[in-house]
Amino acid sequence: MKKVHIIGLGLLGGSFALGLRKSKPEISITGFDIDTQNQKDALTLGIIDKVQEKADADTDLVILATPANTLAKILIQTLDEVGPETLVVDFGSTKEALCKAVANHPKRAQFLAGHPIAGTEYSGPKAAFDSLLDRKVFIICEMEKTDIHLKAKAYDALEALNMKIRFMDPEEHDRQLAFVSHLSHISSFMLGKTVLDKMEDDRNIFDMAGSGFASTVRLAKSSPAMWAPIVLENKGNVLEALGKYIDCLQGFKQKIESEDFDGLYREMQEINQIRDVLDLGGKS
Amino acid sequence: MKKVHIIGLGLLGGSFALGLRKSKPEISITGFDIDTQNQKDALTLGIIDKVQEKADADTDLVILATPANTLAKILIQTLDEVGPETLVVDFGSTKEALCKAVANHPKRAQFLAGHPIAGTEYSGPKAAFDSLLDRKVFIICEMEKTDIHLKAKAYDALEALNMKIRFMDPEEHDRQLAFVSHLSHISSFMLGKTVLDKMEDDRNIFDMAGSGFASTVRLAKSSPAMWAPIVLENKGNVLEALGKYIDCLQGFKQKIESEDFDGLYREMQEINQIRDVLDLGGKS
Repeated sequence: MKKVHIIGLGLLGGSFALGLRKSKPEISITGFDIDTQNQKDALTLGIIDKVQEKADADTDLVILATPANTLAKILIQTLDEVGPETLVVDFGSTKEALCKAVANHPKRAQFLAGHPIAGTEYSGPKAAFDSLLDRKVFIICEMEKTDIHLKAKAYDALEALNMKIRFMDPEEHDRQLAFVSHLSHISSFMLGKTVLDKMEDDRNIFDMAGSGFASTVRLAKSSPAMWAPIVLENKGNVLEALGKYIDCLQGFKQKIESEDFDGLYREMQEINQIRDVLDLGGKS
Repeated sequence: MKKVHIIGLGLLGGSFALGLRKSKPEISITGFDIDTQNQKDALTLGIIDKVQEKADADTDLVILATPANTLAKILIQTLDEVGPETLVVDFGSTKEALCKAVANHPKRAQFLAGHPIAGTEYSGPKAAFDSLLDRKVFIICEMEKTDIHLKAKAYDALEALNMKIRFMDPEEHDRQLAFVSHLSHISSFMLGKTVLDKMEDDRNIFDMAGSGFASTVRLAKSSPAMWAPIVLENKGNVLEALGKYIDCLQGFKQKIESEDFDGLYREMQEINQIRDVLDLGGKS
């Protein structure tokens, strides 16, 4: 693999480039971002060697790391244009709609639907760092639809980054991510909103916040440009998860209202089993 | 200060003892816990020198670090028994009811109502560590009701631990903590519940969880023995905070339902100001 092109030079695209460079410094990396400041930053930070809108005809790998609602259009356009030896991989957080959008494209076999389970609450090229993807999970959807020969290019890059590959179908991916990722972000944003609203009559409220609050509200610092698209692209599943979350909160509220000490205690005790599940699960 | 007695040898009581010992190794520390295993662990871990139920007559400082719903009874009983040179300090997470319960006690001036803003999701003496309270905020309520001479004993200990003292009235304390601490714990517990419930039809759902989920759900590992009492002791404020949180979630859900991209984007963008507030606030 000699040439990589990255569209979207933010946290994920930038970290992918930096991680890849570290392990394979011989690869030439071009890239593009609709934000010209991001283009400049990506050059300055050594994320890319050159800004260019389109991939070269002999590019091995094109990475699409733009917001979820822009991916379908960019993916179709990129597939239309790339040469026969190029593999296009997306890093989107939702997979069902994208896989459907490209299902009948004549070059479908040149596309690999991916999702690296990694991120921070920060965004943009300046937030990128070379170890973000190190040993993280990379989900691949509909792997059988991608050309076996081209797929090897993605595997080479993922291996260089020490990523762990998991296969899922797009529907299952979106359903699971709604619960273990998208809902976390909403719960955190709304916690932030509740306390910010309260600050209007209590200016010093944040002085009393401890590390528990900081940890729970951390994701409320996340980028709206990334998250508004995700919750709408995955609308059905997100609404299901959010509805169940609100039901849980209502149930807990009723237990407080009726001063049901035993019920509250038992419920929290049952939820404590999350200790074991989290310790076993992929804490990437 | 020569003698300290600690009732409740868990995370907070234990960490207080370990921190104090580090800076003032000459102090003798006795202690008691209703759980005999905690007594043994506290001895083994060097948290206390000796298990005894009551403070000696010449004890300088008695620390009460038991669950919120047990404090009023233990506080009154302790005040009844202690000698005239002993100061009793509680570490409870709720202050209004406790201050009321002890308002007319003949030895009210020997009590200092305190709350160290520190903790982790773990509990018990084995979770204690000497730096837990280091440079954290210690809230004191109704400071004017405590004898000025006895108060100096608490200040000595807090200074030894590098704690930063803040003064608040009990009502304000409970109102603020409902938003920046108690609500975080509930949001986290209910996030855990929602995903655990989902696990019943999706066994591998936690495999897809990233660092964002882990951070948001961390507090769901907290002790029910500590948290069931807190939410009930602070019922009114917790219900207000929880009600407002549910309202925020309902509003966000409606924006998703109506595919209001701009509304979602704007709302998240406004909440992003939490970045600045958190960076300025006491991130203890």
